[in-house]
Amino acid sequence: MTPASPREITHHVKRFETPPVPAIDAAVHAAALRRLDLLTKPLGALGRLEPLAARLCAIQGTLAPLLTAPQALVFAADHGAAERGVSAYPRAVTAQMVANFLSGGAAINALARLHEVPLWVIDAGVAASFAAHPLLVDAKVREGTRDYVVEAAMTAAECTDALDRGVAIGARAAAGGSRVLVLGEMGIGNTGSAALLMHGLTGRALDSCVGRGTGLDDAGVRRKIALLEAARARAPAVTEPRDLLREFGGYEIAMLAGCLLGGAAARCVLVVDGFTVTVAAALAARLQPAVLDYCVFAHRSAEQAHRALLQDLRVEPLLDLGMRLGEGTGALLAVPILRAAVALFTQMATFESAGVSGQSAS
Amino acid sequence: MTPASPREITHHVKRFETPPVPAIDAAVHAAALRRLDLLTKPLGALGRLEPLAARLCAIQGTLAPLLTAPQALVFAADHGAAERGVSAYPRAVTAQMVANFLSGGAAINALARLHEVPLWVIDAGVAASFAAHPLLVDAKVREGTRDYVVEAAMTAAECTDALDRGVAIGARAAAGGSRVLVLGEMGIGNTGSAALLMHGLTGRALDSCVGRGTGLDDAGVRRKIALLEAARARAPAVTEPRDLLREFGGYEIAMLAGCLLGGAAARCVLVVDGFTVTVAAALAARLQPAVLDYCVFAHRSAEQAHRALLQDLRVEPLLDLGMRLGEGTGALLAVPILRAAVALFTQMATFESAGVSGQSAS
Repeated sequence: MTPASPREITHHVKRFETPPVPAIDAAVHAAALRRLDLLTKPLGALGRLEPLAARLCAIQGTLAPLLTAPQALVFAADHGAAERGVSAYPRAVTAQMVANFLSGGAAINALARLHEVPLWVIDAGVAASFAAHPLLVDAKVREGTRDYVVEAAMTAAECTDALDRGVAIGARAAAGGSRVLVLGEMGIGNTGSAALLMHGLTGRALDSCVGRGTGLDDAGVRRKIALLEAARARAPAVTEPRDLLREFGGYEIAMLAGCLLGGAAARCVLVVDGFTVTVAAALAARLQPAVLDYCVFAHRSAEQAHRALLQDLRVEPLLDLGMRLGEGTGALLAVPILRAAVALFTQMATFESAGVSGQSAS
Repeated sequence: MTPASPREITHHVKRFETPPVPAIDAAVHAAALRRLDLLTKPLGALGRLEPLAARLCAIQGTLAPLLTAPQALVFAADHGAAERGVSAYPRAVTAQMVANFLSGGAAINALARLHEVPLWVIDAGVAASFAAHPLLVDAKVREGTRDYVVEAAMTAAECTDALDRGVAIGARAAAGGSRVLVLGEMGIGNTGSAALLMHGLTGRALDSCVGRGTGLDDAGVRRKIALLEAARARAPAVTEPRDLLREFGGYEIAMLAGCLLGGAAARCVLVVDGFTVTVAAALAARLQPAVLDYCVFAHRSAEQAHRALLQDLRVEPLLDLGMRLGEGTGALLAVPILRAAVALFTQMATFESAGVSGQSAS
């Protein structure tokens, strides 16, 4: 991807226009499932890799899918409410971790190198200035959201900007040849924002949407719930996704939702990381339900609300390794599984070509 | 690995001598866990990758572990009882699948290529002759076991031979520089043999050790249980692992158990595939409990008895993708997770080196 310059994407529209997301190819999907039954293995023996392979075919509209040029996109931003201590870490850690991403020392860097997936760090709204860097995409809307306990986290124009820039980033990655977007985030306090959004989108009780984030103890979780309840009480009736984003969102979450929509509109495979990215996917799906057909949910986070949200979306993630780091680490860990599904689908011999006897009538 | 020629490993001993398996390094293990807490991530946020990384350190006795030259070893053999129809596939499929492995068309080939893991196919006792092939290791004990319903599956000398050859294969791979053995199997009927061994080793009811194998229907499972009950009734009191192998085993299972012991004796990481390889690991652990410290259980097979056996061994596999193919496919899928654990452990910055603020006192 050529990093999008902020000068190119500062056109303001008053209302975000959701890009159209095409349906995945049902005929190719059915043909892929039929082909899987001809390969030299017992019926269904590849388990969840089989429907995954078929869906990758349907997304690309071909029985010869290619996971060309995957890119990891990590969206970072700060949250006004983080100054109130809803996280185990101070707010300055967002900028410090962005610097760590840029110098190659974070977990996501190690995984991106291992799996040969280029990494881009998108400054969606970090409360710090960064020198230009080849891996940094400056799409900053503002230096952090406002404190959602006392006012809307962002203005309507900022919300539209963040969504639009996300769409542009997804579209640009696709235009540059990437067929796979691996999506992560960084933002101290963003599980609080994600919890408020999940509550507003799903109607689940707010406390069931709240977890330990980066490592709160029980007292910390109780403080976090009280703070989020105060925020929700300020705007209790909001359920429309763009309005929820404006009241309680983060710039990285809005930009992720836009990127998911822009990537799906361009038929990219979207590899969804943990709780916060899944909230962005749930939000994008409310605007365009077809976006979920492009999403591969990579892992189940240890953040407890993630399990419930995945159930609400009726999806099962590929991995369950007890991780709760974000950054896109769970999504990157799933990339080899996508590659395996494609390799098996495209390279295995059929019973006929290999001269292997088929299953006996039982 | 230079393939072991059968001429080099046909020395007969009357009783299998278990090679000594060294303890993994407890001091390095503790040091690795301490180091994990210095890396730029919340405490424990990498979930199960953290204890995995620490164990890889302890196995190699270093805080700079290397997964050098992993090799996939697929042990194949036939089973006398398979002629009775305990599988959804005819017995000839074992040899046909070996040919498929050698020509590169099987699932394990696609995954081995993808993850750049060389594949060796070990003929432990297939009921067919193969022309010499660069990927084939001829360690054939006999063309298939005897029918365990009417007589012992193998003689004591054959059992010792199979175990010894397995030890030699593991030792030779290690001597050739491999630090990681990825273990799979192929043998029509071998889940029946594995069920009898599991029953004998664990004392669990025989029917709870039986699954659908490659795809039996309910009537097929009932026939399989009846057959295995008849076999067990012939030698109901046997519980000693080598005696169980002789009565009910397969040459591939015995050779796998030997290879696990030989690999652990040489401090290799052992990546254990599904049900049948896990039975071999349970058997090896009865001879040398320390072998389990070298085992990474890769995936939970859809074969229902596998879940119970993993519980008995008090281990949790890394993946749960509904696969039930064998060949080592689940084990190979886990290789990138091992690589990720090592990359994260060795490449991540510390809070101090990256200038990132640590966790607040809560």
